[in-house]
Order: sequence, then structure tokens, then C-alpha cells
Amino acid sequence: MAMMKAAVFVEPGRIVLEDKPIPDIGPLDALVRVTTTTICGTDIHILKGEYPVARGLTIGHEPVGVIEKLGSEVRGYREGQRVTAGAITPSGWSNACLSGCGAQDGAGTAHGWKPLGGWRFGNTIDGCQAEYVRVPDAMANLAAIPDELTDEQVLMCPDIMSTGLGGAESAGIRIGDTVAVFAQGPIGLCATAGAKLSGATTVIAVDRIAGRLEIARLMGADLVINSSKVDPVQEILRLTDGRGVDVAIEALGLQATFEACLRVLRPGGTLSSLGVYSGDLAIPLGPFGAGLADLRILTTLCPGGKERMRRLMSVIQSGRLDLKPMVTHRFRLDDIEKAYDLFGHQRDGVLKVAITP
Amino acid sequence: MAMMKAAVFVEPGRIVLEDKPIPDIGPLDALVRVTTTTICGTDIHILKGEYPVARGLTIGHEPVGVIEKLGSEVRGYREGQRVTAGAITPSGWSNACLSGCGAQDGAGTAHGWKPLGGWRFGNTIDGCQAEYVRVPDAMANLAAIPDELTDEQVLMCPDIMSTGLGGAESAGIRIGDTVAVFAQGPIGLCATAGAKLSGATTVIAVDRIAGRLEIARLMGADLVINSSKVDPVQEILRLTDGRGVDVAIEALGLQATFEACLRVLRPGGTLSSLGVYSGDLAIPLGPFGAGLADLRILTTLCPGGKERMRRLMSVIQSGRLDLKPMVTHRFRLDDIEKAYDLFGHQRDGVLKVAITP
Amino acid sequence: MAMMKAAVFVEPGRIVLEDKPIPDIGPLDALVRVTTTTICGTDIHILKGEYPVARGLTIGHEPVGVIEKLGSEVRGYREGQRVTAGAITPSGWSNACLSGCGAQDGAGTAHGWKPLGGWRFGNTIDGCQAEYVRVPDAMANLAAIPDELTDEQVLMCPDIMSTGLGGAESAGIRIGDTVAVFAQGPIGLCATAGAKLSGATTVIAVDRIAGRLEIARLMGADLVINSSKVDPVQEILRLTDGRGVDVAIEALGLQATFEACLRVLRPGGTLSSLGVYSGDLAIPLGPFGAGLADLRILTTLCPGGKERMRRLMSVIQSGRLDLKPMVTHRFRLDDIEKAYDLFGHQRDGVLKVAITP
Amino acid sequence: MAMMKAAVFVEPGRIVLEDKPIPDIGPLDALVRVTTTTICGTDIHILKGEYPVARGLTIGHEPVGVIEKLGSEVRGYREGQRVTAGAITPSGWSNACLSGCGAQDGAGTAHGWKPLGGWRFGNTIDGCQAEYVRVPDAMANLAAIPDELTDEQVLMCPDIMSTGLGGAESAGIRIGDTVAVFAQGPIGLCATAGAKLSGATTVIAVDRIAGRLEIARLMGADLVINSSKVDPVQEILRLTDGRGVDVAIEALGLQATFEACLRVLRPGGTLSSLGVYSGDLAIPLGPFGAGLADLRILTTLCPGGKERMRRLMSVIQSGRLDLKPMVTHRFRLDDIEKAYDLFGHQRDGVLKVAITP
Repeated sequence: MAMMKAAVFVEPGRIVLEDKPIPDIGPLDALVRVTTTTICGTDIHILKGEYPVARGLTIGHEPVGVIEKLGSEVRGYREGQRVTAGAITPSGWSNACLSGCGAQDGAGTAHGWKPLGGWRFGNTIDGCQAEYVRVPDAMANLAAIPDELTDEQVLMCPDIMSTGLGGAESAGIRIGDTVAVFAQGPIGLCATAGAKLSGATTVIAVDRIAGRLEIARLMGADLVINSSKVDPVQEILRLTDGRGVDVAIEALGLQATFEACLRVLRPGGTLSSLGVYSGDLAIPLGPFGAGLADLRILTTLCPGGKERMRRLMSVIQSGRLDLKPMVTHRFRLDDIEKAYDLFGHQRDGVLKVAITP
Repeated sequence: MAMMKAAVFVEPGRIVLEDKPIPDIGPLDALVRVTTTTICGTDIHILKGEYPVARGLTIGHEPVGVIEKLGSEVRGYREGQRVTAGAITPSGWSNACLSGCGAQDGAGTAHGWKPLGGWRFGNTIDGCQAEYVRVPDAMANLAAIPDELTDEQVLMCPDIMSTGLGGAESAGIRIGDTVAVFAQGPIGLCATAGAKLSGATTVIAVDRIAGRLEIARLMGADLVINSSKVDPVQEILRLTDGRGVDVAIEALGLQATFEACLRVLRPGGTLSSLGVYSGDLAIPLGPFGAGLADLRILTTLCPGGKERMRRLMSVIQSGRLDLKPMVTHRFRLDDIEKAYDLFGHQRDGVLKVAITP
Repeated sequence: MAMMKAAVFVEPGRIVLEDKPIPDIGPLDALVRVTTTTICGTDIHILKGEYPVARGLTIGHEPVGVIEKLGSEVRGYREGQRVTAGAITPSGWSNACLSGCGAQDGAGTAHGWKPLGGWRFGNTIDGCQAEYVRVPDAMANLAAIPDELTDEQVLMCPDIMSTGLGGAESAGIRIGDTVAVFAQGPIGLCATAGAKLSGATTVIAVDRIAGRLEIARLMGADLVINSSKVDPVQEILRLTDGRGVDVAIEALGLQATFEACLRVLRPGGTLSSLGVYSGDLAIPLGPFGAGLADLRILTTLCPGGKERMRRLMSVIQSGRLDLKPMVTHRFRLDDIEKAYDLFGHQRDGVLKVAITP
Repeated sequence: MAMMKAAVFVEPGRIVLEDKPIPDIGPLDALVRVTTTTICGTDIHILKGEYPVARGLTIGHEPVGVIEKLGSEVRGYREGQRVTAGAITPSGWSNACLSGCGAQDGAGTAHGWKPLGGWRFGNTIDGCQAEYVRVPDAMANLAAIPDELTDEQVLMCPDIMSTGLGGAESAGIRIGDTVAVFAQGPIGLCATAGAKLSGATTVIAVDRIAGRLEIARLMGADLVINSSKVDPVQEILRLTDGRGVDVAIEALGLQATFEACLRVLRPGGTLSSLGVYSGDLAIPLGPFGAGLADLRILTTLCPGGKERMRRLMSVIQSGRLDLKPMVTHRFRLDDIEKAYDLFGHQRDGVLKVAITP
């Protein structure tokens, strides 16, 4: 049995590099040799035991690689082809997918919907922080990478970029909108970029770290607010002459930022939430207009599937957006435990790490 | 100075019938002689002092009547014409109106948006529980009543019907959807009707009062749940084979019903909130999918304006919906204090009262 | 080799019942024993040679039946289960499907889109006017039929009902809209029903045949116009006080009806086209407002897939719509050539025929 | 009676500068002293007699100026304030306006809709190629110009920019779309800019004039096609690997470009039409998929109103778009006949002229 290296969840507090068999594949699967992958904030939640997964599971949901082998029923690809796949891998055929919501794919359930069901890599099946990964429903998920793009250029497509842009897209941003984005971690930075790409003409980026606000400007922020220095709610109301913003994007997952979003929205505005929360949220009565302010609160889970990846890569290819500044550190797969240590503790100004098996 | 009778807010706990001057009108206004009006749940909040208005203000925001006099700049109407106007009276020219959100009309503010700003009758200007009412921005708001419709037939259009149907419309209900409506007071009943009108094929009505559930069936409910007897969340999940509903409509304004809505939603579902809340709301983490379930929470304030009234009256005229069962009691304006007493204490199975000056 | 009866296209003018092998199935397919099917207007185009298909192809795209055999990779079904499938059978995994447009499925093409590519039964693969039919991509397409519904009750779901309702849905009909539907053949009747289901409050049905207008009333038409007796354009303008309609639906496929739709639209209105045209169309300058009237012209190909079928069957089950009046004649498969003769010549007031193998 | 200079339509072939009285204003109007205006392609149609207007009418619908006087009922502005107003001046209160379609404003008609009814300046009332212009429904239409923007920077907002961007917005362009824009006159150039602002990642500009294609690149085109040298349909299909474009924008008003749009659309694509046509249009059967290709054809008339102007000026202010390259020539109002001559004959590479009274 051929073996490979893989980053495996052992128990809360421990993700370690182990030897595992190279995955077998079924008729609809593909085996992809991973050439680049990364670590996500969600993986840190898994590491800490805050998000439960099975012991022994290979972690990681952001694959870039080369097709090693195709299942017997897979058409339209060739071995050796450079590909990526989304963090979310919709089946294509569930009721959720056929309703345009593959992230909540319930393939195999009686009714075809399952919360977060489209998220399989490193959650319900082995992930891609490994030398090889099995991609399920390959025909719905494998997206060919254009030759002119490097691995690192497309490394954010599977999750960070899809999620961040998705938050802007769900909000229905219109040309001329004013948008505030709370928190400029990797997803918030992509939400900032997404707001600009969608036609917002005043994008206000908020964070506590000056370095992130600098990158936010590169991503399209017109104005930046360092929330360690000023109250961002007051500052946004001041900057908008008391009007508030059309759209506020939450990209951190805390009550404070969720609430700040509500406080800066104009009546009729939209709160687009991307954060992963760890407790109940409170909606304050006043900013909610007691239920009468024509507000919308939306949440978006990373959209996946090959068509999504194709679109995101076209953004990169067009030069509209350059996400390379977000890859701040690089590690070999052999050193992934060091990468977890650095990323988990947010040391050294890390934004995203590239891991190469 | 010609005088009239009007129901006036004196102080918390007291709305009394007083003599007041018949209103003067400006160039863009109309004076309407009220022939039928009603009392709204919001008026009870005002009565109790829970929603503050100026002392001396005439209450009431649901006018049906006859044009007595037109302002010098008003075109397209004639004196003696039967008309209604929405509870919300958009100016038409504010930035909020020009953005399609007249309920948050900020006409006169620097930026053109104001929370609830479109609600003027019985809130920021004198209302229509009186013999006469001044209708501002008459050309945007006066809607001619078709001859074949009686006053009582259109009495729900200004608020209850516009709000209830609005909750269904905002939710983007599609043909084949399953919709749960929590609480079957007047607005909930109209939301139930709105869900059916929008193409929902399983409409589930929830209330604690058997009589209201009977009316809910008349309004279009396919299934009814008496929440004083069974847990509506468990029952809805059972009825939907664990799938949950596509849309849940909150029509009461309580944490319990808001939360129940979240608990019965499928992933990717929509909570359409119509209730007026009186405290902070909590979003429970699990039903919210920790922010990852692709949910939408929307609030809708009663849409107003003459085009809205025209559309709603066409619903009545088409026979698609008959709201007469909702008018359970009738009073002369002279007896409006008794009507407040009955309606405020929800005695005698009251749903809505018709008040005729 | 087990054999079956099948209606086969031999050459223009000849569709005949022949013996053919029962289809083999692949890992993702299902074999369905057909219990009821029907003939579509499109099949008559094929018969006449107006729409080209391969000689020897089994015709028919509206299957109701029982699962005889499941492919090795198919999960979530059992043999013996009653099922239907749409006329359009999306793969689920093409770029078109992942974009929510399975009717233009280009599974297998380089870019994932192909005009009409989702229409396979009786077009690019063998259809269901036969004892057995192979259903491709079974997991995306097989929809279980609720026990309480008969074959005939769901027989319109695969095509006629999906197309007709689809024309109303694409148009974005809103509560209170006025809608005109030109031609009340089977698809037009379903469009009439779809307009009512979507909240239109004045549905105007147009046809030249009095009997069809009677059925149109059953399907939800508020007003009917016999275009063999009056000019429908003038009549609609009269009925709407010169305002025109919000939405006009074309359900015949002729220049005359297409043009009449444009002539009755209000500025800002929507023409939803369902017809299959056989020549170039002309857009008259005046009704088109020289390009300045904020009009929309939309075409809709029958939506397919199991989720669509589930929704449509829920409409039937809810009692919102009863399509049984549309099944006017019944034939055994052995007599399908007679059925083609009757249906092709539109004799005896035929609307739809039920064919039972 | 105070007099002013104004460009007046005398008869087909003659627009001349004449002395006219400075307009009187009513209670809802404003008198604006024009500081900069321009000539539109539509004005040339008027000049040639192709679009009929009343003799003696002042031409021009793109005003930039200073408030000279406010009507008695106008609030929220001050005399001396720099303002602009859209080419389309919605009343705000018609049924069309309250339906979000002010361009088809039928204020004063029985039903509230009138084709092109929102276009009043230089069409149904005196326009702004004059020293002064009366702005009707001033509160819905006057938009304050930010101090940091010059007259010329906002000169395209009233018509060209609003129309061009509107064509992109109506089409519902999504991040990652491929968009072709046929013809790069002033409106086409703005449509090109609008496509990029909306998130399209491959914008293909087509024109016959090399100089316009150069400006198209400045406006956001990724690829340009000189249709005097290559067949643009073949070239676009080649560039998209046979896939076609998601959206095609027609910005010329000819059968050839309209048809080319259809020929380059993918199934399920959108044709957004901005051109003013002068004859019937033909829809070719094949590219239209015989009505089965899930296509959309939309037309957009320039959106107006102060909120629209505010949004467009925010685009300029944000630096997302610089339209100064489009102002190629400048004239005094006294020389406007020369400007008509130059612009009408498209001499000297003219795109837009600035006229200063």
C-alpha cells in the first residue's frame, strides 16, 4: 500500500504529520497530488477542539495540485492537469445544489439539505494538507488552472477569496454604495476587495492592526479606521455625515463587530456576516429599529464548485485583484506543525501561509 | 375656526376624544373627510406610553374617506372622490424614496434617510382617528377606491395588509415553498395570506388561540398548529420530515417566536420579521449555524404610497383575498374610547375594529 | 436480449411503434419502467421533420413510472419506487448547472454550456414513449412521487407544467400584477395558472378556441378574450384603461402573438416568451419604444431536475392547481400511432393524451 | 422681462441661438443658471427632424449650474448652490416612480405611466442649452455637486454616464462575467466602464474607430476589437473559446450590432440594449435558440433623479472612473451652432463637447 504524509487531527491541541495510505478513489472521484495548500482559521478552531472532527482525519480544505488519477466515470479531464477545487465540494445533484445552494448540500439525506453539508474536505472526509487528496464528485469540483497563473496566485480561491467576495456578492452591493468591512484578516481583506469589485465607491476598512489596514488599501479600501485608536462606529457615522453605510460586512465572528455593523447601517441597509461565531449573538433593539428599519442580515458560507473556481481565477487573471500580498510565509509540508504554531498564534504578522508537499 | 372630533394622546394611559380645529392644508396636501378608520396594535403601544409621541397628537394611521379639499398644487384628483392612503406616506422625492424604500423616508434631512421616517400619521403629524385628516404629499399617497369596494373591504390596505403581504414579498417566496407564520393576529393572518398569494404550497400557521387558527385557514393556511397545545418547533420539523421550512415569518415581536423561526428554518432559509420588538433579541448559535448556514433575516416596515394601495386593492377586487372576517367589531368615532378599551384588552375575540366618524 | 415496445422516429412523417432492446444502464443511470407518458407539441415538430433528431431514436420526454433497476453508483432510491423525471435532465455538474441554468447544460463540452443541452430524452438520447427508459444522472433527476398522487396527476410536471409555470416565474410577477397570456394550449394554460399562483390579480387569457378559454378560467384566468372574435390588443388596452399589462406571456411561437405581447405591455413591462419559433422574429419599433421603454424580453426553456419536480408535485398535492382537465384522451402504448394522429391534427378538442404501456 | 440666450429648435435642420425670456418657476421648481452643458446624440436626432419636438423648444438635457431661485415649496437647498440634475427628471410621485421606474414617469396621466415620460428637458419642456433652465420637481431632481468636483467632471452624469452604467447594471453583471460592448461612442464607453465597475473580468470593446478603442482601454476594456478590420462575432467566439459572452451590450442602435450581440451570447446570456433604434428590429432564429435558449433582452432608458446623480458623482469622486478624456472640445454658448456642426458631423475625433454660457 503506497503511503503519503498527511497532517492529521489527533486530539484537541494536536495536529501532527503522519504517514497514511494514499487514498483510494471511486468512479466519480479524482486523486489529486497536492502541490500547494494552506492553513485556514477554521483549522485552528479544529486544532483547539472548538470545532469537532473525527480523530485521525486529515485536515485542510484549500487544494492546488495535479490530477494523479481519474475515477472510471470521470470525463472532461486528463491526468497531469493542474487543478484546484473549492473548500466546499458540492455534489451537484442534491436538492440544495439544484436550488443553487451547494454549500448546504445534503446529498444522501432524505431531503437533500444539510447544514454546512457541502464542506467535506478536512471536515467529513480527509482533507488536503497531505501529499494526495481524494476529490469527490470530481466533475462538479475540479477546475483547470490557467497556465499563466502560479499555484500561489490561485491558493486563496478555494476558501478565503470565495468567502470574502461571496460576502460582498450576497449583500447585493450596487454601484455607488458605501460599504464598511469589519476586520481585515484574510477573509475581511477579500471582502474589502469584493466590495470594490462590486462597484462600491466608498469602502471603509476597520481593523486593530496597522499592517492589515495597509494591505486593505491595496485590496481596495478608500478609507481605513484603526479601531484600537478610534471608535469605529462614531468614525463611520462621522465619515458618512450621519448617514451610515449601505452595507456592513462582518468578517471576524464576534458580538462586538456584529453589533458595530448594525450600529453603522443606514435604515434599509444590509449586514453581510462572514464570521464564525462561538456563542449566541445579541441584536440590540435600537440599531435594529425595533424590527422596523427594513434591515437585512445575511450569512454566507464559502461558495464552491468548479464554476465558482473558474470565475475567481478569472478575477486573478484579469489583474483586477492580486492576492499575493496575503501569502506572508511559506513552509514545506514536513514543517507544517511549525506553520500551525506560527499561524495559530498569529505571530510575525502572518496573514496566510503556503504549504508545499 | 371649524372644529372636529379627534382621538388625541393626552398622556400614557389616556387617549381621549377631543375637539380640535379641522386641519389647514398646504399646496401639496389634501384634506380628507374620514369615513372609516381603525385602531392598530401600534396605537396600543402609544396608549401605554411604550412608543412615545407628542402630547396632543391625533392618533391613527389607517384612513378611508372622501377628499374634502385639495392643495393648490395637487393635480389628478377631484373633491368628493373616495380615497385611501397608506399608514406610511412617502414624500416620493427623498433619497430613500428614490431608492425604493419610502418607509425610511428622510425627506428634509441632509441625506434623505430617516428610520421609520415614512410613518407620519399619528406619529409625527396628526392622524386619522378624527373627522378629518391632512394627507401630506397627496399626489404620492392618495389612491382612488374602486366603486365596487366598500370602506370595510379596503380598511386593512393602509397597514395590516400592506405589512403582512410585505413580509411574504420581502422573503422572496417561490412557487412550491413551505412557509411557517408565527402568530395569527391581524398582521400574521395577512402574512399567511401573502405566503399563499406568493405561491407557497405548504403554509403552516401557528397561534395559541383556536379562533385565530380558524381564520388562518380562511386566509390560506394549509396546516395549523396550536402552540398552547404542542411545541410548534417540534411539530413543524415533524411535518416537514426534518427538512424545516424555506421561509419563517415572525408576526408577534417576541424573542420566543423570533427564535422559533430560526429553529424551524432549513439551511439557506429566510426569516422574515414583521414584529415590533421591545427589547434586545438573542440569536441562538446552533440554529444560526454559527453564522455558516446561509440564512437571511429580513425586517419589513409597512410599504406605503398610492401605487402600493392600488395593488392591494386589486387583490381585494380580484377576490383572491377577503379580509372582511378580520373586522370583528364596529364603533362610532364618538365611542372610540370604548373601542380602545376592547381592542387594548383583546376582549371578545376582537381582531380589528371599524371606526366610523 | 430482452425487448420492449417503443415509439421510434423513422423519417419525417413517420413515428412508429417498434421492438427495441430494453436499455442498458451505466453506473449513474436508472432504468425506469414507464407506467404513463404523453405526447408533446414538440414531438409533433419532430414527426413533421421540423425539428431534426436521429433516425431510430425513441421519442418522448415526459416519463412517469417505477424504478426497475439502479446503476451501481446511484444512492437514495430503491427499486420499485414510483418516480418521475423532468423533460430536461440536467447533469448537475456542468458549469451551466452550477450557474443555475441546467436547461442549457453543456456537460462534456469544453466550457460547460450547450444550447438546449439539458434536453436529452427523445432528443439526444432515447425517450420515454416506450416500456422502459434509461434516466441519465439519476440522482439529479429522479423524483419520488407522493403516494396520494396518481400518475395522471403528475403527468404534466415533466414538461408542460414546468414550462408554463416557469414562464410566469421568470417574469418576476408580483402581487397585484396584470398579466396577459397569449394562447391557451397546454403550456399557455399552465402559464395562466402560474401567473395566478405568483400573485397576479388580473390574469387575461387569450385564445381562438372557446373550449380552451373555459379551461383557462379553471386554471385561474380572471378575464378571457376570444381572439377569433375581437382584436386582443385593443381589448386588453380597453380592459386596462389604456395602461397595458405588467407582464405578457407568449405561449404559441408565432410572430403575431409575440408582437401582440409587445403591443399590450406597459412601459417597463416584461414579455416572457415560451413559444418555439420557426422563423426570424420582428420587433416593431413603436411598441419597443425605439429601445427606450425599459422593456424586458425573456425566454424560458422548461426547468428540470428532481428538486423542480418535487416543487411542482407539491403544487398538485396542495390542491392549488388541478391539471386533470388537461388530460382529454387516453391510449395504450400499442395505439400510440393513433394518439399521434389525433394529437397531431388537434382533433376532438384534444389538449393532452395519456399513454400507458 | 429679463431675457437670455437659448438654443432653440426652429425646424428640421435648424437649431439656432435665440433670445428668450428667462423661465418663470412654480412652487415646486427651481431656476438654475447653467454654467456647463453639452450636446447629446439625441439632440442631433432632433436637429435632423428624426425625433420630433415642438418648434421653439429649447434643446438640451444635461445641466450643470448654480441655483438662481427656488420655488416657494422647495426645501433643502439654497440659492447659489452648485447642482446638477439628470436628463430624466422624475416627479417622484407617479405610479411609475413609486414602482422604481421614473424614466417612464406618467405623472398626470390617469394611470401614472407614460413611455419616456420622465424625459422632459429639451423634449416636453425647455431644456438647458441656455443661460437658465427651469428644473421641475426640484426636490426630486437637484443634486448638490461636491466642492472638489469641477463642472466638467460631472458633466456626463446627467445622461451619458447614467445611461451607460445603467446598461451594465440592468444586465445584472456578476463578478467574473465576460461582457462585450458593441460601439464605443460616449454611451458605449460608459457601458464599458460600467461593466468593469460591476465586476466583469473580461470586458471586450468593439468599434470601428481606433481612437475610440484607445479610450475604451482607459475606461476598463480588457480586449478591443476593431470591427472595421475583423468580424467581431467570429473574434469574440474565438477569444472565448466558443463559449460566448455572459452579457452583450448594444450601444449604437443598429440592426447589425443588435444582431451581433445575440450571436455572441452564450445560452442563458443577457443582451442589454441602450441604442435608440430607427426601424423595426429582426431577431434571427438561430442565435435566439428558436426561443429556447433562456436569453434575456433588456432595454434601459437613462435613470434620473437626485439619488442617481449622487451615486454617479460618488463614482467620479472615488477615482474609480475619470470621464474627462471624453470631453474633447469646448465652446461658448454663443458658438453652440458651431458645436452642433462639429458634433453632428462627428468631425475632428469629437466625443463630447462642453458648452459654457
